[in-house]
Amino acid sequence: MSEATRVLLDESRIPRAWYNIVPDLPAPPPPPLHPGTREPVGPEDLAPLFPMDLIAQEVSAERFVAIPDAVRDVYRLWRPTPLIRARRLERALGTPARIYYKYEGGSPAGSHKPNTAVPQAYYNAQQGIRRLTTETGAGQWGSSLAFACAQFGLECEIWMVRASYDQKPHRRSLMQVYGATVHASPSPVTKAGSAILAENPDSPGSLGIAISEAVEVAGGADDTRYALGSVLNHVLMHQTVIGEEALEQLAAFGETPDLIIGCTGGGSNFAGLTFPFIREKLAGRISPEIRAVEPAACPSFTRGRYAYDFGDTAGFTPLLKMHTLGHGFVPDPIHAGGLRYHGMSPLLSHMYELGMFQAVAKGQRECFEAGVRFARTEGIVPAPEPTHALAEAISEALRCKETGEEKVILTALCGHGHFDLNAYDRYLSGAMEDFELPQDRIEEALATLPGV
Amino acid sequence: MSEATRVLLDESRIPRAWYNIVPDLPAPPPPPLHPGTREPVGPEDLAPLFPMDLIAQEVSAERFVAIPDAVRDVYRLWRPTPLIRARRLERALGTPARIYYKYEGGSPAGSHKPNTAVPQAYYNAQQGIRRLTTETGAGQWGSSLAFACAQFGLECEIWMVRASYDQKPHRRSLMQVYGATVHASPSPVTKAGSAILAENPDSPGSLGIAISEAVEVAGGADDTRYALGSVLNHVLMHQTVIGEEALEQLAAFGETPDLIIGCTGGGSNFAGLTFPFIREKLAGRISPEIRAVEPAACPSFTRGRYAYDFGDTAGFTPLLKMHTLGHGFVPDPIHAGGLRYHGMSPLLSHMYELGMFQAVAKGQRECFEAGVRFARTEGIVPAPEPTHALAEAISEALRCKETGEEKVILTALCGHGHFDLNAYDRYLSGAMEDFELPQDRIEEALATLPGV
Repeated sequence: MSEATRVLLDESRIPRAWYNIVPDLPAPPPPPLHPGTREPVGPEDLAPLFPMDLIAQEVSAERFVAIPDAVRDVYRLWRPTPLIRARRLERALGTPARIYYKYEGGSPAGSHKPNTAVPQAYYNAQQGIRRLTTETGAGQWGSSLAFACAQFGLECEIWMVRASYDQKPHRRSLMQVYGATVHASPSPVTKAGSAILAENPDSPGSLGIAISEAVEVAGGADDTRYALGSVLNHVLMHQTVIGEEALEQLAAFGETPDLIIGCTGGGSNFAGLTFPFIREKLAGRISPEIRAVEPAACPSFTRGRYAYDFGDTAGFTPLLKMHTLGHGFVPDPIHAGGLRYHGMSPLLSHMYELGMFQAVAKGQRECFEAGVRFARTEGIVPAPEPTHALAEAISEALRCKETGEEKVILTALCGHGHFDLNAYDRYLSGAMEDFELPQDRIEEALATLPGV
Repeated sequence: MSEATRVLLDESRIPRAWYNIVPDLPAPPPPPLHPGTREPVGPEDLAPLFPMDLIAQEVSAERFVAIPDAVRDVYRLWRPTPLIRARRLERALGTPARIYYKYEGGSPAGSHKPNTAVPQAYYNAQQGIRRLTTETGAGQWGSSLAFACAQFGLECEIWMVRASYDQKPHRRSLMQVYGATVHASPSPVTKAGSAILAENPDSPGSLGIAISEAVEVAGGADDTRYALGSVLNHVLMHQTVIGEEALEQLAAFGETPDLIIGCTGGGSNFAGLTFPFIREKLAGRISPEIRAVEPAACPSFTRGRYAYDFGDTAGFTPLLKMHTLGHGFVPDPIHAGGLRYHGMSPLLSHMYELGMFQAVAKGQRECFEAGVRFARTEGIVPAPEPTHALAEAISEALRCKETGEEKVILTALCGHGHFDLNAYDRYLSGAMEDFELPQDRIEEALATLPGV
């Protein structure tokens, strides 16, 4: 076991291929269905929204997809990211466990999202597309796509949920620094937005509305496509650069993982970290437990149903078989905006049904407590999303303190919290709520399932 | 010349010593004078404010001071920092120049300030001190010291200028996440603060007032000392880890620098980058030009006087021989808060008089233009302070485009701008001012010099 604290890799070690886990699964995941015909969607259904290369990746049967040189060349700005042993946290906990975290917060946008934004912008530019549209809630995804578009000379048009647009002007400014156009959603520039504004001029908006607007504009113009920051297979695959690097780095530490923990919202960060390790596990080379952590306020794995549902609130997208609380579910306003999604990646949902990993849910106060503990020992202030994984890593390390077990725990610190200090302020002042989620609210939301 | 974009170093390459440039200078800098007696200050004058190890470093005649293992061990959390070639910026400019930047924004606090906060906290803890006090304007220094105190179990008490305390709650929250106590200055907990509040309960405060409060509390308690984030010799020396790493990394790129550019406020970032290179230049091994860039709104090198002046506005500190606009000078509210200091490091001032580097001044609009250009090509959004150095690097690269010169330019990107997006917003909306600084305002401020 190495004495190092951080293992860095030279840029020549940026992975040369993304890993596609689908062909390694014992059964393929159920296909998305067309919302009208309820037949499996084909490439032609997706072509108005995505470029052909990404559609091909979405349904690829190849285990590895080569990363284009132009994409690796942008990755070089911040990749490989460091794998860090949390020695100071371990010491403060008095645990015999060894905790490693893969830190993605050093990217230009401060999170793991550029790992997929960059190839998405690249493939669109290759196909001659001129403009990308997307939606963003808190702004992590929007700023990542704006950065990526700047790299490939694409215009970027973003619909940002009105409530965030007003309350988080800094995230909006970040997108604009990268040259993007940002609309408060609902906006008067789309039919979907105009209709909602006509009914309620003061609508605070929602991610569902913002998706509708971005999709409407992309679908209505030949030179424009849409980009999604999580959930879909190709997005999860792009994130596997995290796990591929971590595999090499953990080996450089001389370690084999016993437990791998990641937070789940749409699932891209969790998949990015774990898929390469699951590949090695399936091959019998390692045998770690794998654990997803979701917010108790939005518990799609632990309290949702595995069923076909819409990806958006409005019911415009294809139907996806996934763990979902129902597309009518409106989560309480927890600060981990990236985890407030009613559904879950269909691929991860399928793997969960196959028993390939566990899931637990946590309240946000425990998570922020972990975030503060982490900041005071390791220095980095974590974004609210990865505090969920850190809280579980800390619980587990404290269990090891009881048992004396020298467990090797690996987790992903997928973003820094410099944009989330108002949430920490709320926690430190004692004003942060732990929302209860009564079963009848879940039942009510599940009643919005389309019953396919 | 290497094909790499980033050169990373293994943590074993964290420097083992800080470099003290004083013994290498042709003449020693003039000593600080006691504000009462106007005699050179001795260690006993400084002992109520600083621990003996730091006082010894302040007047050291040794060329190298060993970095304690416990300090290197904290540095390990983010050091060595990367040296990055700005290939995308070069391409966008169409310049034959090669631009390298040393990026310090990956530290826990997002800037170079922890490089000195950590050893300052360490030496105080070693001497049995229980609490550190300091002042902070925009919060970069305060959050760095708060982080460092958390590492060594010290209490940290910070006086934050009232105007920033109210307008920048995120920076205050960051200090609190690290466990510090933050007072709005003027505060009722000190005599200095109370006196000002009695006169004006709505005082917006100033750095000078905040210094007075922090110094008063440190001077009044045996278990408490004061910490300063720039200006003094020991602070500049701690920052030389930047330049020592950059020397090794630039050599790994196969390059010799022709021009080194840094921004100057109190001088610590500029000194940290340049001193190791100046050592090599004095030894005849390299011959780069060295250039400081200061804000046109606070031009201590280019329009100030080299004279004894107080370090603070109120006139409580020792008299320092430095380039100063007069301690009565109140700079216009430019967004680069870290560069709004009436004076300059006495050591750098002395070296400037010796002709060891040049200085230029820039308006903030040109700097933000450079910041946006940098973000859209290199990805990282720079803090307002280092945009001054980037603007000069870009001008120089464009001059090289005219002449065809393949100049090797090295600069320091001393912090990220994720806390400064309101300033970018102001720039992008066209509302940012370039303040004129008429000569009569400078003359008026220079009239506040004590005339020693």
